[in-house]
Amino acid sequence: MNVALILSYDGTAYHGWQVQKNGASVQQTLTEAVEKLLGCKTYLSGVGRTDAGVHARRYVANFKIDTCTIPLDRLPLALNAQLPEDIAVLAAAEVPAAFDARFCCTKKEYAYYVYPSRLPDPFLAGRAYRHPYPVDLTRMQEGAQRFVGRQDFAAVRSTGTPVKSTVRTVFHCEVERCTAFGFDGYMGATAPLIRIRVCGDGFLYNMVRAIAGTLLYVGSGKLSPGEVTEILQQGMRAQAGPTLPAHGLYMNRLWYEKTPELAPYRLDE
Amino acid sequence: MNVALILSYDGTAYHGWQVQKNGASVQQTLTEAVEKLLGCKTYLSGVGRTDAGVHARRYVANFKIDTCTIPLDRLPLALNAQLPEDIAVLAAAEVPAAFDARFCCTKKEYAYYVYPSRLPDPFLAGRAYRHPYPVDLTRMQEGAQRFVGRQDFAAVRSTGTPVKSTVRTVFHCEVERCTAFGFDGYMGATAPLIRIRVCGDGFLYNMVRAIAGTLLYVGSGKLSPGEVTEILQQGMRAQAGPTLPAHGLYMNRLWYEKTPELAPYRLDE
Repeated sequence: MNVALILSYDGTAYHGWQVQKNGASVQQTLTEAVEKLLGCKTYLSGVGRTDAGVHARRYVANFKIDTCTIPLDRLPLALNAQLPEDIAVLAAAEVPAAFDARFCCTKKEYAYYVYPSRLPDPFLAGRAYRHPYPVDLTRMQEGAQRFVGRQDFAAVRSTGTPVKSTVRTVFHCEVERCTAFGFDGYMGATAPLIRIRVCGDGFLYNMVRAIAGTLLYVGSGKLSPGEVTEILQQGMRAQAGPTLPAHGLYMNRLWYEKTPELAPYRLDE
Repeated sequence: MNVALILSYDGTAYHGWQVQKNGASVQQTLTEAVEKLLGCKTYLSGVGRTDAGVHARRYVANFKIDTCTIPLDRLPLALNAQLPEDIAVLAAAEVPAAFDARFCCTKKEYAYYVYPSRLPDPFLAGRAYRHPYPVDLTRMQEGAQRFVGRQDFAAVRSTGTPVKSTVRTVFHCEVERCTAFGFDGYMGATAPLIRIRVCGDGFLYNMVRAIAGTLLYVGSGKLSPGEVTEILQQGMRAQAGPTLPAHGLYMNRLWYEKTPELAPYRLDE
């Protein structure tokens, strides 16, 4: 049988999703928990490679097993008992034999959290990126719309694994205020938290972190929304904003439009 | 001159405020930063001893120094550059020579965070206590009122350092829902976060954690609000609820009613 696991994890302690030679990965930690619990060797396929320090509010992985000795509705609690508290299994579901967490995912949304503050907030350390200057939210919202559509995103990626094409579709790109646990706009804080959400059919290496850096340039007046369009058209990485640190980034929502078995888990909410 | 520092810290990595032989403390970490920056030996007095793992949304410490070589308005940024990111100095203020962070504090409020959920939330690990059963908020609110007033709190303390009297005044005790960063009531969660706030003129050892444990007993039907009053009157520790873990506890608000120099920092908000 083919089993999909729905996860959430704080990536601070991990070298990303994928198994690495040097250092713990989420994939390896979860694989060990599954193998220990079910007494078999298996391979976990994940919806995407997250970098070191990147978090996941929602994440999907799947593995194949001859027979699962534990009923699927009890698997989350049993796995959580084996896992460190920074990784949680929220649900387990049987999916068709052909299901693959990565290739069956039709759309993904990442969220990048920024908090504009002169002073650090200990409760946001490792969870959101601190930007020590005020930003203009309306300008950022205007800038964000320039990323929407099917276009070449070469200007907002880091060179990594070679890719056939740098064209991707961004379905939406939203900038909004939000609140945070422990964060209350006290003294040094110039404004509440800002969340940038980018939804696409695929992402180039560091693409969301470079989009977020570019939007901070727009929000602080270093770039105009119109210049974002020019930079994308010209594909000049050096003209766009910086790649922001990994710790502000979250895999946020997922769409599996051809896998009705995952619909009850509201991964797109 | 006498300098008050206003702090915030995530206590996860520390053996509490007070200097310990085995393990880092917030006091020691902050003392080292002050001494390194200002090139002198000094002693930091803190508003209270927080236990290992307890957090502080607000905390006040003070130290005396002949002359401060850095202007006070620049001291927070300079100290933060020396400090790990789980401790932040939010402000520094000159206070009268007789000021002491502990003895001049007239009222303190602690907050205890509980999240009722079958499943763990990686983003609340070490930040809030997970209670795997639903609770009745209205019952908890009724129970909380039984703790208000000047009375003997021997039933809700752990035996530690001997104290002359176990009578204290609780000014308010409130139970309310609140939201949290990353937490969104997904699947396993039975309800949003619950915050228990207890304000008093002083606290016995583990008193807030035992009040929180007793209120969870009330919320899950193991005790009635009326029984809380009986338990307090009889002073029977075994009849009250358990002492909940340290990681859900925060020093939250402080009152320095006789120190107008601290009024601009809104420590009571």
